[in-house]
Amino acid sequence: MRLDQRDARSIIRELKFREGLVTAVVRDSRTKDVLMVAFQNPEAVQKTLTEGRMYYWSRSRGKLWLKGEVSGHFQKLKGVRVDCDGDAILYDVEQAGASCHMGYYSCFYRKIKKGRLTTFMKRKFKPEDVYGKR
Amino acid sequence: MRLDQRDARSIIRELKFREGLVTAVVRDSRTKDVLMVAFQNPEAVQKTLTEGRMYYWSRSRGKLWLKGEVSGHFQKLKGVRVDCDGDAILYDVEQAGASCHMGYYSCFYRKIKKGRLTTFMKRKFKPEDVYGKR
Repeated sequence: MRLDQRDARSIIRELKFREGLVTAVVRDSRTKDVLMVAFQNPEAVQKTLTEGRMYYWSRSRGKLWLKGEVSGHFQKLKGVRVDCDGDAILYDVEQAGASCHMGYYSCFYRKIKKGRLTTFMKRKFKPEDVYGKR
Repeated sequence: MRLDQRDARSIIRELKFREGLVTAVVRDSRTKDVLMVAFQNPEAVQKTLTEGRMYYWSRSRGKLWLKGEVSGHFQKLKGVRVDCDGDAILYDVEQAGASCHMGYYSCFYRKIKKGRLTTFMKRKFKPEDVYGKR
């Protein structure tokens, strides 16, 4: 899905940015699995809604990023829900490749099992094959 | 599920709190629907894991809160996943009543439809019946 600039601006006016950001929760539109959590500033929301692919604000790097710009693992926008406070957005996307930079389908590849954090997913790719040696 | 104090502390040491907080995404354990997004400080995570019901940190009120303490709509802990960066936690819960203080089953009761935010869920309760007149 894609919105025109005007509709996107109107949606953004209904959001409540806290210290300039809203929380983005991203799901696979087919399986409803949660893929990742990230943050967005108004520009990231505007570009996401009008271009139809996911943009985020990196708090650690202090810059806008297009998901997939390095890895090719773009996220195509399929649906948008907004919470009661207007400070969290739930996105449904079509994920190319895998969402996690560690090579897993979802960033939530660990769960608590018998009191310990345990990896329960298999890698879809080796990080160094996609992002290069770092 | 419930952890003992020691296992809970050990999980918390693997988390990465940013400005003292991690992001909590909460799902219905049966339907996998996303119910709400909130934040947690280490004490909220510790109490959640050891008591088996959800606690959060309220950024606006600057205090710990037990979900359900006013409404009776407690969230019983059924599963915990942690993301790659250790700064977001995905919780599966059994939700009593409804999760949203506005009376909806999920806080994400609005979606973008034809360019506009539209309510697509039906209320499960009237807020004033649960929280009193405010």
